[in-house]
Amino acid sequence: MTTAATTLKGQPLDKQVLDSMLRRRLFYTPSFEIYGGVSGLYDYGPPGCALQANIVDLWRKHFILEEDMLEVDCTVLTPHEVLKTSGHVDKFADWMCKDSKSGEIFRADHFVEEILEQRLNGNKEARGHKVDEAAKDDPKKKKKLKGKGQEAVLLEDAVVQEYEETLAQIDNYNGEQLGELIKKFDLRNPATGIQPEPPVAFNLMFGTQIGPSGGLQGYMRPETAQGQFLNFSKLLEFNMQSMPFASASIGKSYRNEISPRAGLLRVREFLMAEIEHFVDPEGGKKHHRFHEVENIELVLLDRDTQLSGKTTPRTLTIGAAVRDRVVDNETLGYFLARIHLFLEKIGVDQTKIRFRQHMANEMAHYATDCWDAELFTSAGWVECVGCADRSAYDLTVHAKKTGAPLIVRQRLETPKVIEEWTVDIDKKKFGPRFKKDAKVVETALLALSQDKLEALSKDLKANGTVTIDVAGVADGKAEVSSDLVAIEFTKRTENVREFTPNVIEPSFGIGRILYSLLEHNYWSRGADGGDEARAVAPTKVLIVPISSKDEFKPIVRGLSQKLRALGVASRVDDSTASIGKRYSRNDELGTPFGVTIDFQTVSDGSVTLRERDSTVQVRASEDKILEAIQALTKGSKTWKDIQAELPAFESQETEIPVR
Amino acid sequence: MTTAATTLKGQPLDKQVLDSMLRRRLFYTPSFEIYGGVSGLYDYGPPGCALQANIVDLWRKHFILEEDMLEVDCTVLTPHEVLKTSGHVDKFADWMCKDSKSGEIFRADHFVEEILEQRLNGNKEARGHKVDEAAKDDPKKKKKLKGKGQEAVLLEDAVVQEYEETLAQIDNYNGEQLGELIKKFDLRNPATGIQPEPPVAFNLMFGTQIGPSGGLQGYMRPETAQGQFLNFSKLLEFNMQSMPFASASIGKSYRNEISPRAGLLRVREFLMAEIEHFVDPEGGKKHHRFHEVENIELVLLDRDTQLSGKTTPRTLTIGAAVRDRVVDNETLGYFLARIHLFLEKIGVDQTKIRFRQHMANEMAHYATDCWDAELFTSAGWVECVGCADRSAYDLTVHAKKTGAPLIVRQRLETPKVIEEWTVDIDKKKFGPRFKKDAKVVETALLALSQDKLEALSKDLKANGTVTIDVAGVADGKAEVSSDLVAIEFTKRTENVREFTPNVIEPSFGIGRILYSLLEHNYWSRGADGGDEARAVAPTKVLIVPISSKDEFKPIVRGLSQKLRALGVASRVDDSTASIGKRYSRNDELGTPFGVTIDFQTVSDGSVTLRERDSTVQVRASEDKILEAIQALTKGSKTWKDIQAELPAFESQETEIPVR
Repeated sequence: MTTAATTLKGQPLDKQVLDSMLRRRLFYTPSFEIYGGVSGLYDYGPPGCALQANIVDLWRKHFILEEDMLEVDCTVLTPHEVLKTSGHVDKFADWMCKDSKSGEIFRADHFVEEILEQRLNGNKEARGHKVDEAAKDDPKKKKKLKGKGQEAVLLEDAVVQEYEETLAQIDNYNGEQLGELIKKFDLRNPATGIQPEPPVAFNLMFGTQIGPSGGLQGYMRPETAQGQFLNFSKLLEFNMQSMPFASASIGKSYRNEISPRAGLLRVREFLMAEIEHFVDPEGGKKHHRFHEVENIELVLLDRDTQLSGKTTPRTLTIGAAVRDRVVDNETLGYFLARIHLFLEKIGVDQTKIRFRQHMANEMAHYATDCWDAELFTSAGWVECVGCADRSAYDLTVHAKKTGAPLIVRQRLETPKVIEEWTVDIDKKKFGPRFKKDAKVVETALLALSQDKLEALSKDLKANGTVTIDVAGVADGKAEVSSDLVAIEFTKRTENVREFTPNVIEPSFGIGRILYSLLEHNYWSRGADGGDEARAVAPTKVLIVPISSKDEFKPIVRGLSQKLRALGVASRVDDSTASIGKRYSRNDELGTPFGVTIDFQTVSDGSVTLRERDSTVQVRASEDKILEAIQALTKGSKTWKDIQAELPAFESQETEIPVR
Repeated sequence: MTTAATTLKGQPLDKQVLDSMLRRRLFYTPSFEIYGGVSGLYDYGPPGCALQANIVDLWRKHFILEEDMLEVDCTVLTPHEVLKTSGHVDKFADWMCKDSKSGEIFRADHFVEEILEQRLNGNKEARGHKVDEAAKDDPKKKKKLKGKGQEAVLLEDAVVQEYEETLAQIDNYNGEQLGELIKKFDLRNPATGIQPEPPVAFNLMFGTQIGPSGGLQGYMRPETAQGQFLNFSKLLEFNMQSMPFASASIGKSYRNEISPRAGLLRVREFLMAEIEHFVDPEGGKKHHRFHEVENIELVLLDRDTQLSGKTTPRTLTIGAAVRDRVVDNETLGYFLARIHLFLEKIGVDQTKIRFRQHMANEMAHYATDCWDAELFTSAGWVECVGCADRSAYDLTVHAKKTGAPLIVRQRLETPKVIEEWTVDIDKKKFGPRFKKDAKVVETALLALSQDKLEALSKDLKANGTVTIDVAGVADGKAEVSSDLVAIEFTKRTENVREFTPNVIEPSFGIGRILYSLLEHNYWSRGADGGDEARAVAPTKVLIVPISSKDEFKPIVRGLSQKLRALGVASRVDDSTASIGKRYSRNDELGTPFGVTIDFQTVSDGSVTLRERDSTVQVRASEDKILEAIQALTKGSKTWKDIQAELPAFESQETEIPVR
């Protein structure tokens, strides 16, 4: 298992160099930069945009098309009531604390984490230990707070242990606890030397007003899921009442992060791809295609391992993981395997994926099980895909709030005979008798257990009246007579079963995946590896005319059109830079192949084809080269095949002087 | 030219029936409907979503790939300062007026329009004319105000004329003028009988706060253009300083409409596709591919025709239109033709497209020319694509505000020699001499004309001092002596030309195009036409097993996987409805082909292929049918070709009893 970020070839990854290349080549760029920028907002330039489009396209094929999911496109604008019901208005918050002197605002857990880490490093320095320089450069660990920062101060062993224990569970503290830590450890803002104010909850949703009267509070959605839940009944109808099925959505979501400083990994506006798979909670949540994936091996860091303080994951087939109940059920396991296959397909480094199970206190209270697909980057392990079994929570709360029947009605093959004690109330008499208490008395009656009903039935028949406990009425009791109520042992046949489906939710952060993919693939050159990355490379072929003379122009244009007709994305670089320079800047863009048009092309129509990773070139007629490109981009041939088929060519980079 | 909305086959279009079908089949559905919905917000269900994805895909191919545009993906969240500079904070507003009694809020122009139309209709009724029933059903004209509405009241001829003249220019009134009309004509809310309050401006942008301190006011972008302008210099650099070039963006935009009631045609959240083509303002804005489109005929409703009170457009080739200066320049003309070709490609009815030129007072003050591609629907002519020449406005205002050089620097082939009178100021002495007035005096000096400078030069040499007019200093004059300033006739050579590019902006409302396309294509059956619509049909093939018996399941699954491998979107309908019913509901979804698996399939492996518009079926082996489907969806063969190649088959719809 990797412990420090590396390039595709295993060299240490220099994140600053990579980031500067990504910005220079316009993979991404800070939004509104000429206005000073806004933290947490980034634009994608042409290569980032094409890469994103390719990831989305593969996602759509891998999930939506392959699994016949029902794609929906719901609005970002969402009214208050929906997000109140879902729990986001009350609970979708981080803790922030303010420096009353400077007005600076910190995310409380990050603040505690950072000061404690500074002190621990200061202790190491004081003891003459070498402080981990790599950790210093790690952007996640890098000093973010302005001010004096780390000082070489000795700490007692007991204090070191306490700090380390605190850091180990930093994700588990609530606001009050974080406030206590700040006081207990006397944590101060290095810039001003004062303790920040007690943490307060800051809701992460962007609010807005819908309509002109300002009466309708709305938010920009924090996830795409709610729109899918609200359309459940319509989708079930569209699916001709057939279960299970999944909806899926690709779209922007928004979180007003308190202080985003981690580049593409923590942003305020991001593209999500989410699946809501609706499944019958009965019968163990089996999946009819589980057998297709059961032998796939996953790297799993389960809850028990984490609880024992270890971070070494196990490698298990998903079949074994579900059988041993490491993963809760087949459907959840099926999606973990499918997520793994997707990440493999787009070119994520296989040694840098793990699935980490959520601890009980990390999960929402209603969740049955939850795993994150984490990718290893220079910022450590980054959660890129979440996969949770959300039980029936969402459909239940929305149904309860709106009265809409977000349920499945299923005809039973063999009707179900139900024999039980039932209460039959004569409403005409019951209402007038109990007046304003009628509702609570009725509720109390209907809530009685079968045993209690059986006993009451006898009493009622014997005495003509019974007294039951009713919280909320005058003396806590109500007398019910047999002219109002009958309690009988009845038998009925049910032909239809009603149930609220459970939801398995794989949720993808496309931006985080894209960034991790860039780290895993785009930083190295070498003859091996890199093939997977081609699947999503924004441009497949670079066309390089050796000079910008007019005689080359029709050849360039013709080649460009032929590639377009083959569906291969190409780009022309006819700038005046040397061939070598032009190749090198397009190597950085991840363009796997290059075609050079030189003076020989003008005389005999032959062109050269160059592969990025090996920098080897072959030469043949334009038609043969086009054929080769098509085979390479389709994946039907490898570069080795092409090298075997076509004659090698020595590079123009050294042979022919340019300008 | 069409005057009433029709289906593909020319039958009158019943919008209510169409809308109800579109909602039933989940093309679109009101967002948050189980919570009562929010006006102006709609979700797309699976067919709408697939249709949208196909339109976007074709758009990307037709524009971005075909023209090598630079795609960018910028954030929706936009800080105040950017939209203040662009003019949106001050001017992106509609006029609204409020009923002080009921609190109801109206869009002022719509309010005036509607009441006047009611009165005109009332007058017609009073005169015994038949009121146009079709117009009554027209959703654009339909009574939207609750209350008594139209009454049969006679109007004098002069009044009728005044009302009609007012309606003809309803788009041209500002808030004050709309208020005057409400008073002058005594326009009252039918529901309460009172005049609404004077109109006030309502900004259409959704506001929000970015970050935790609430200090940064932001908006959800009303268009995707600004992000593209702000990245201009980076894109120019990415394009290796080569001009002209275009950026493009596909993404959501937001407008807080006052009272949206026109279904998909006026919504608060919508998908836009925008191109910003940057072009040198010198040399007549030629386009190097104009010759490829110059013979394409467009239906043009130009400014002069509209001014003369007519609505009959002319059909002209775009070559002639640019030559005759009906369309301002080649680049603008090139994009009008490309827009036309795109709309044709996705299946818009060719008799229902026109290009309408904006009147001078409709355009932004900086725009040079602007045309809308309008599509005819049941709501009349609907603006679906705008194509404006925005001059250098946007780049200029952002450069001025931020100091960023949003310009092109071009090496001149022949250096330019400039001879002129110049002012040379000795700042060391000039500052101390004029103190706080130094800046204005300097500005006044530098603003002087060449003639004036020549005269002053002589005076200065003769007298050693000159007096110039300076607004803003004590006595409106300043005396400048020759020790502070030299005025000389100088000669210098410029090797580089700097200019701010002009912008041609084609801007597409994808939702409006999608809705118009549905009206133009999805409502009719018939043997002719409809082929174009196939290009964007959400599902290409419906697979229909004749019964849901187990023996059919592996065949269905196998066929479905083979189609997927060919990249053809298919869908299975194995519900218990009759074959005929299943075909008819998928005909409504626009699915062009159907494959039936019947009892014969089980014995000999043959299947039938049915075409939606003709309802004709052919029968052959599965392989042959798959080949035919691939040819049909790729467009390499027509249905007629297939009918000629494969044996016809009589429908199972009548022959074999189902269940």
